[in-house]
Amino acid sequence: MEKTEATTIDIGESNKERKGKAPLLPNPPPPFVAKAKGAVGGYKKGVAIFDLILRLSAVATAIGAVATMANAEETLPFFTQFFQFQASYDDLPTFTFFVVAMSFVLGYLVLSIPFSIVSIARPHAKAPRMLLIVSDTVMLVLATSTASASAAMVYLAHNGNPNANWLAICNQFTDFCQQSSGAVVSAFITVVLLILMVALSAIALRNVRRI
Amino acid sequence: MEKTEATTIDIGESNKERKGKAPLLPNPPPPFVAKAKGAVGGYKKGVAIFDLILRLSAVATAIGAVATMANAEETLPFFTQFFQFQASYDDLPTFTFFVVAMSFVLGYLVLSIPFSIVSIARPHAKAPRMLLIVSDTVMLVLATSTASASAAMVYLAHNGNPNANWLAICNQFTDFCQQSSGAVVSAFITVVLLILMVALSAIALRNVRRI
Repeated sequence: MEKTEATTIDIGESNKERKGKAPLLPNPPPPFVAKAKGAVGGYKKGVAIFDLILRLSAVATAIGAVATMANAEETLPFFTQFFQFQASYDDLPTFTFFVVAMSFVLGYLVLSIPFSIVSIARPHAKAPRMLLIVSDTVMLVLATSTASASAAMVYLAHNGNPNANWLAICNQFTDFCQQSSGAVVSAFITVVLLILMVALSAIALRNVRRI
Repeated sequence: MEKTEATTIDIGESNKERKGKAPLLPNPPPPFVAKAKGAVGGYKKGVAIFDLILRLSAVATAIGAVATMANAEETLPFFTQFFQFQASYDDLPTFTFFVVAMSFVLGYLVLSIPFSIVSIARPHAKAPRMLLIVSDTVMLVLATSTASASAAMVYLAHNGNPNANWLAICNQFTDFCQQSSGAVVSAFITVVLLILMVALSAIALRNVRRI
């Protein structure tokens, strides 16, 4: 890559450029690299902007999931002398885990927005992308685990299980079941958005010059 | 990057190399790139070998999870005039999903081994890595969802839920509960191995020259 100091006879296409630049820049990037960087910069910036949009959507769906589940409670209109029939999310440990874990995912998503903005400003920086892809994967696992565990419980609440003698409770608590089902659906949308974010980060990490 | 055709006076460090190479290779890679590639090649090959080891371990744990869950059944020694008390994995739809989904993950892991071997042979190839990181993420979500849904059911079978009036069945079916718990633990080890594989692929995809 070192330039020759003196060139007497030049029979090449890019003489003018080199003559002007060589003394000023001791180790300039080769022209095709600069060109590739320029072409790829816009593409990577587009990926980063799309990542930010996905992240904001995931914040919205996570807020929806947490708020719906945390507010899911129902008191039945009839009661006996001794107790009232009431259902709320903390009656099922899985739903409590859902509220805690999805709040954690929501907090992570909000805190990761600055890193996504850094990726837009500097499309070639690898450090924020690496941080995002690894932490996105961990949060993806957390969101998936709590969403599917709650889905299993919602299924059980709707259908019951005659083999284990567990009865469906959704016959009585219809509103509670609908609210918790909605929260689970919202959590699964968050999961899909997180998968897309991981795939996008992988695309942006790819060394485009060496395909 | 084009070489000058004729160079009369050369005052540089790498004259001998260039004199010999310039006419033979019209567009040789710049020397620092070649050096970086050599240094990084070994590191990337190490990452690829570690990926293969993790993949084989994940195959083993997935086999363990599927086999344990599929064989989890118990017949209680006492019976009434009309029916016998028996539990097997297909009494709970979540456990059936577990067997199907973990078999799918197992099949994927076996089929992905050739791509991992290609990554060892060609540490700089990006296409197999991109394929692996995206499909690993999808399989990670599948394995996590089935493992945590089954974990929720195992928890319910062990502890029951007095609020929903669901009784613990593990008082009677102790062996069945132990086997299904073991299968869930094995599935979670597969999940951890898949997370490590995604992180390793991200590290290998990173453009090391541009940190």
